[in-house]
Amino acid sequence: MIADFQDWAKSRQVRIETSLQTLLPATNIAPVRLHDAMRYTVLGGGKRVRPLLAFAAGELSQADEERVTIAAAAVELIHAYSLVHDDLPCMDDDVLRRGKPTCHVEYDEAIALLAGDSLQSLAFQLLAEYRLADTPQMQLEMVKRLAQAAGSRGMAGGQAVDLASVGKTLSLPELEFMHIHKTGALIRAAVMLGACCGSGLNEGQLTSLDHFAKCIGLAFQVVDDVLDAEATTATLGKTAGKDAENNKPTYVSILGSTRAHELAEELRSDAYQSLEVFGATAERLRQVTDFIIDRKF
Amino acid sequence: MIADFQDWAKSRQVRIETSLQTLLPATNIAPVRLHDAMRYTVLGGGKRVRPLLAFAAGELSQADEERVTIAAAAVELIHAYSLVHDDLPCMDDDVLRRGKPTCHVEYDEAIALLAGDSLQSLAFQLLAEYRLADTPQMQLEMVKRLAQAAGSRGMAGGQAVDLASVGKTLSLPELEFMHIHKTGALIRAAVMLGACCGSGLNEGQLTSLDHFAKCIGLAFQVVDDVLDAEATTATLGKTAGKDAENNKPTYVSILGSTRAHELAEELRSDAYQSLEVFGATAERLRQVTDFIIDRKF
Repeated sequence: MIADFQDWAKSRQVRIETSLQTLLPATNIAPVRLHDAMRYTVLGGGKRVRPLLAFAAGELSQADEERVTIAAAAVELIHAYSLVHDDLPCMDDDVLRRGKPTCHVEYDEAIALLAGDSLQSLAFQLLAEYRLADTPQMQLEMVKRLAQAAGSRGMAGGQAVDLASVGKTLSLPELEFMHIHKTGALIRAAVMLGACCGSGLNEGQLTSLDHFAKCIGLAFQVVDDVLDAEATTATLGKTAGKDAENNKPTYVSILGSTRAHELAEELRSDAYQSLEVFGATAERLRQVTDFIIDRKF
Repeated sequence: MIADFQDWAKSRQVRIETSLQTLLPATNIAPVRLHDAMRYTVLGGGKRVRPLLAFAAGELSQADEERVTIAAAAVELIHAYSLVHDDLPCMDDDVLRRGKPTCHVEYDEAIALLAGDSLQSLAFQLLAEYRLADTPQMQLEMVKRLAQAAGSRGMAGGQAVDLASVGKTLSLPELEFMHIHKTGALIRAAVMLGACCGSGLNEGQLTSLDHFAKCIGLAFQVVDDVLDAEATTATLGKTAGKDAENNKPTYVSILGSTRAHELAEELRSDAYQSLEVFGATAERLRQVTDFIIDRKF
């Protein structure tokens, strides 16, 4: 089972990488330096967790994998843009990402800013340019979901709360609010967009899937906080211990390590339960759940 | 005629302002400071040139004004986001915009970055959330056009070329390449999106309209350069003389003032010619053309 999952994940990671290589503007197209920076940021790294979730969710609705690839690429572009902007000096001011210098270190701040901006535009361009759903109406729904997930009441809003929380004591509900927005919204979008590429899911199933996506989004962050506290920079490929150094509230700082580990297990169990309605077709989603919660980097 | 145009423009400016007030997240919604910054940036200022173009283009295709309002708001949000990011210290580093402190001066750099990011997301959300065209397929086409206009082969790409050109001598074609992307692409999108809200235009008419939009986009920039060189900060509501100070190539620095004025007239004439195919329905577009070229701020 595990070997099978690793093969499946590897092949989807290769597929998304190949696809992103084609979908990103070539480096011989002007403005060359901007396109270089966009490719530098997106290609050759990352666990591709959101695409894996989209592919696994697509299996629930028998979605065409070509469609899911484009939708997953769009989600991954939004994720990549958020990392570039998040690493800027006026935000987290980080110099290392996926084992490489961050975009503004490799290029400069202005190019990093524009690369992030352009990646966001490209994400929406992809969702409109290819046929990704059974109807154009459903495809507009996908554009709307991704835009909401990325915006001020989703990911960008979560980042604003994150910045405002530095040095403050947050309650667990406040921390949860932040993460539901900062990382949860885009993870939810990845799951839902993957499912939207296919058809046949009823309202109840979509509600269950959305609940699953919420659980897995939070679990992702709990594990992220644990890893930041417990792993090394070499293993993570990004600066470890940043949260404590920046005096940021995390699940570990609020709950302690033991309780944070337990919370991840509770979320795994809740996520599994939400998938029961799908039976065997959700096997991949269960595996991706384990991949997210059991990861070591 | 002129008085009539002023009434028409004023009522559309009020309409777009009212609409943006409703479409932007309210300031009692978390995260409050981010939503404040978004509203600060977008509301209460600006000539709304792109919305006026969208409304005037909508008259060619008998577009419903409710639809055009949303489409124009989406274009204006993209424009507003580009100004916020353009004013940041790592870009043009400007402190004054529309007679007020720029967003990062009034708030801070991180909030300005996130406000810009969120305004871009919101633009695409609007294009997907409301019914704006006769078919969802046409609406996807609108999403695609706006995304292309905003991205690395449109506006953001033009900004990258602009930054790279500081202190360099550009040829006229190089300067034109820069502006066709930096300001031209979004102005083209405004015109085309306005027309897409209605129906009945044939391929030839759409090609003429697109040519018109290209002329008016360039004319806008030529006049912008002339004003930057000849007007005062008080009249402009933004820092005058920035281009010369920053050693930026402009139409005035390359062509001289007299030739720049002549070029604006040639573009007006070319724009008018592109509209001939539409007869009387293009009267508003002719008036907006004059408004753009004859403006004093």
